[in-house]
Amino acid sequence: MTSEELFSNIVAKRSFLCVGLDSEPEKLPESVKRYKDPVFEFNRRIIDATAKYTVAYKPNFAFYESQGVSGWDSLRKSVEYISVNHPDIFIIADAKRGDIGNTSKMYARAVFGDMPFDAVTVAPYMGEDSVKPFLTYQGKWAIVLALTSNKGADDFQYFTSAGERLFERVLTVSQQWGTPDNMMFVVGATRAEMLSDIRKIVPDHFLLVPGVGAQGGSLEEVARYGMNKKCGLLVNSSRGIIFADSSDRFDIVASEKAAEIQKEMAGYLAPLVG
Amino acid sequence: MTSEELFSNIVAKRSFLCVGLDSEPEKLPESVKRYKDPVFEFNRRIIDATAKYTVAYKPNFAFYESQGVSGWDSLRKSVEYISVNHPDIFIIADAKRGDIGNTSKMYARAVFGDMPFDAVTVAPYMGEDSVKPFLTYQGKWAIVLALTSNKGADDFQYFTSAGERLFERVLTVSQQWGTPDNMMFVVGATRAEMLSDIRKIVPDHFLLVPGVGAQGGSLEEVARYGMNKKCGLLVNSSRGIIFADSSDRFDIVASEKAAEIQKEMAGYLAPLVG
Repeated sequence: MTSEELFSNIVAKRSFLCVGLDSEPEKLPESVKRYKDPVFEFNRRIIDATAKYTVAYKPNFAFYESQGVSGWDSLRKSVEYISVNHPDIFIIADAKRGDIGNTSKMYARAVFGDMPFDAVTVAPYMGEDSVKPFLTYQGKWAIVLALTSNKGADDFQYFTSAGERLFERVLTVSQQWGTPDNMMFVVGATRAEMLSDIRKIVPDHFLLVPGVGAQGGSLEEVARYGMNKKCGLLVNSSRGIIFADSSDRFDIVASEKAAEIQKEMAGYLAPLVG
Repeated sequence: MTSEELFSNIVAKRSFLCVGLDSEPEKLPESVKRYKDPVFEFNRRIIDATAKYTVAYKPNFAFYESQGVSGWDSLRKSVEYISVNHPDIFIIADAKRGDIGNTSKMYARAVFGDMPFDAVTVAPYMGEDSVKPFLTYQGKWAIVLALTSNKGADDFQYFTSAGERLFERVLTVSQQWGTPDNMMFVVGATRAEMLSDIRKIVPDHFLLVPGVGAQGGSLEEVARYGMNKKCGLLVNSSRGIIFADSSDRFDIVASEKAAEIQKEMAGYLAPLVG
């Protein structure tokens, strides 16, 4: 998918919402547990209930890997389900991968060759040859961690050399490895006040913004400081949508929660879409 | 496993060799391809052939994930095989994981709950709460990336603030999250000259050292600059051992290659073991 296509989808749905499929098995509603693959059944219903309000899904690999082989199978089925039934939706492998070149090449194959993901989150610590293999697939994206939403972001991401913080260095250097059509950056919503500074470095790139909802970030601030002329934002919510209700109405409630966020987003998008 | 137990195994085998199971399916010898699970069959023979010269195995997750569900199954069987048949050997999940706390907790469950790994490699970029969940399992280890063996290490790991480089900052800060009994650090053999500086910061921790062999690092230099009184080193070789021969004698040749390295290591260990 190109950035223009992604923006078209955002305009069409008046939404820049990404729903995080952090489908922790212990948290699944009782009503899906009788299925052979409860995680897939849960995801399928969440996906069908929220797709009209959503431009992206982001399965978080940890929640699948923790279930071993069966989790990996649930993940694959979920991604294929989105790809077949909602082909306009951007699918992000939230995997935080990154290793030496020959290894990153294999991780890229896992998400882009073996499964129909559009993008994968990547950790920058190991530098250029750890990220570039993810940029060699036509129409696919690497989403590089810049400033994350968690407390631990303070430990190293603000490390400062000659007035430049590490996350700024990561943005400055890593944007040279790709283009605004195959790279995005992760910027946590809990750091919304930093978005103005970040937009000076990467004015045109899409930003994937986690941390709205359960982590406490403000959507209004993210839109104010982070939006560019082509929106340039994918704002993720996971637990606040998918686990909003634990009864058999979980999908209906998830749909309502997604609709609320979409409605708010439509307001912020109004100046861009006329 | 404790660091004392690991050192005992090193003394017993006169070896600090870790064999990297980067078992890329395309590179497997023809003779294993007729098996139902060629990757497992390859690993099983490599393991049995090299175990007497080896104190650790390190499956690289990328090479399994790239095969999807079946790869994940090969990985699990291989790790269980080591655990059952060679229970003294330390098993490292080379996965470079790291995410916000609730997510790292799930990654930890994948490697320590669902599979019998002893340790997992972890990327430090997201800070303390991304690493700590890996330290909550009794006898299990987190191995934090400090200075990696690849070219891209130059991009950010040498970023310098007030005379301190990022990899040194990572060592200084992250060692406070655990102990020398549950944390190690990755330092590439291609940066062996840095090991003296690194030993000033982490004198007692084990270091996992990749990059000897195919990547060009020198075992002699690693031992000279990196060894401490309890050895404190696990030196990894992957391709140089497991793909040294492509005929049906691959396991015998792998055994010979491992034996060569073990013999060299025995020399460096002599002052420690009497």
